[in-house]
Amino acid sequence: MKDAFVAVDWGTTNRRAYVIEDGAVFADQRDDMGILSVPAGGFPAEVAMLRERHGGLPLLLAGMIGSNRGWHDAGYVDAPASMADIAARLIHPEPDVAIVPGVRRDRDGRQDVMRGEEVQLLGAIAAGLAPADALLCQPGTHAKWAIMKAGALADFTTAMTGELFAMLKAHSLIGSEMAGAVDADDEFRKGVEASADRDLLSALFGVRAASVLGARAPGAAAAYVSGLLLGADCRARVAPDQTVHLLADGLLARLYSSAIALVGGKPIVVDSHASFVAGIVQIRELTS
Amino acid sequence: MKDAFVAVDWGTTNRRAYVIEDGAVFADQRDDMGILSVPAGGFPAEVAMLRERHGGLPLLLAGMIGSNRGWHDAGYVDAPASMADIAARLIHPEPDVAIVPGVRRDRDGRQDVMRGEEVQLLGAIAAGLAPADALLCQPGTHAKWAIMKAGALADFTTAMTGELFAMLKAHSLIGSEMAGAVDADDEFRKGVEASADRDLLSALFGVRAASVLGARAPGAAAAYVSGLLLGADCRARVAPDQTVHLLADGLLARLYSSAIALVGGKPIVVDSHASFVAGIVQIRELTS
Repeated sequence: MKDAFVAVDWGTTNRRAYVIEDGAVFADQRDDMGILSVPAGGFPAEVAMLRERHGGLPLLLAGMIGSNRGWHDAGYVDAPASMADIAARLIHPEPDVAIVPGVRRDRDGRQDVMRGEEVQLLGAIAAGLAPADALLCQPGTHAKWAIMKAGALADFTTAMTGELFAMLKAHSLIGSEMAGAVDADDEFRKGVEASADRDLLSALFGVRAASVLGARAPGAAAAYVSGLLLGADCRARVAPDQTVHLLADGLLARLYSSAIALVGGKPIVVDSHASFVAGIVQIRELTS
Repeated sequence: MKDAFVAVDWGTTNRRAYVIEDGAVFADQRDDMGILSVPAGGFPAEVAMLRERHGGLPLLLAGMIGSNRGWHDAGYVDAPASMADIAARLIHPEPDVAIVPGVRRDRDGRQDVMRGEEVQLLGAIAAGLAPADALLCQPGTHAKWAIMKAGALADFTTAMTGELFAMLKAHSLIGSEMAGAVDADDEFRKGVEASADRDLLSALFGVRAASVLGARAPGAAAAYVSGLLLGADCRARVAPDQTVHLLADGLLARLYSSAIALVGGKPIVVDSHASFVAGIVQIRELTS
């Protein structure tokens, strides 16, 4: 095999390993051995197991494995960060094992960090899936919004959108009303529209009041709250007619596409797995 | 005793009984027998005990005791609501026992409800503690903001400010960083200032990033997040130079006074207990 290696997107709860040969994915495997599932001191054994499973191929690890809760802290590269900046800062805990650093921004009194997402973001451009100047969005528990300039990660913002939804559902006064399904339906749209007030604190209590007064169908609150939160997220970042390249699939892609369009933007869905692979292959090429 | 009665502010977790004679408080007593502490079917016995304890004086009950989770659902009066509107809609589950209804607003697609706060709000004006046209704020788990016009409760908005703070502290990624004390200090002020972006979702994740990058002193995040939330709450409702009459004391009065001033308003702290008493006395007078 010519320049074969194993790329691992090693997150907090999940892990995905790609066997890559000549820049293409030969096989991939997903499991739930995220860093929180690895016992204290267990990373060397886990890494040895990965190498053995894949015939001793070199490993290129990205994501929370490089955090202070992971195996080795790979630090952060400052934004603006190009692929070359990141490749130049890999750490090598063992021969033939490298970890990709995260990216931080810390200026004008605002701090933000990412770890793992940078491979996908820069990879989307490497793969030609997004232009060199673009606004990219990776929705999720912590939604990442990245401003790409001349192919580099110029700046970014993280929003606690998904975490706040989960927390409201599990722990708030309105949680019991959020049992229904969420999709990009009429109630979701109403939530996005209500977010135009930029007053999340009162809109959330309004969900309770609407329930008490019988103004919303039982079960419809979850989609409405999702619309409120995604609407607030998108309004803070999407300018009129702005194109957003969305690294997502399934429900999240549908929800963010709908919210972006409703606040006046133009969503384009991009394959996030293909982006990760293109990104990690480029890092490998820059360091081989 | 001339027109003596017992007014009870009977909330979800606490209860406060005032023995009132000739419009003045003769004695008051607070306990934790909120409606959630009364066993199923236990309200008649609780009410009988209250009457016996106070020599059979008439009872005038306000608060969650009149909700569908309380003793009898006293319904809602529509805003705009005057003291006379509320007094006309008391319910009488037993002779000499009355329950004050709540207030609702439901128009232009926005719903809101209150139950118990209306006595304090209208009472502040009855007591001369706020003018007949005013913006009143009762901070708390669910902060109530009331627009008073010609002495009536014209409209109101509830914000989930306190609940969101408690939820973030207990259940979010940034909760472990919110262990420190909250007061109207420099970090609180920074939070209020940061709320000017009207982008709570990213500001909350920024708390995590600041911690990871060492940009905020350990223990300072609680005051900062409190400032973010109260700042967002006040900015949504306080116009430049607008006077806000604040029904609060202690820490909440300090925090909201600071936040209101920082967003350009003028806070005036009002005695909320005196307001409740003035309100309930006026309801009694209107119905005796």
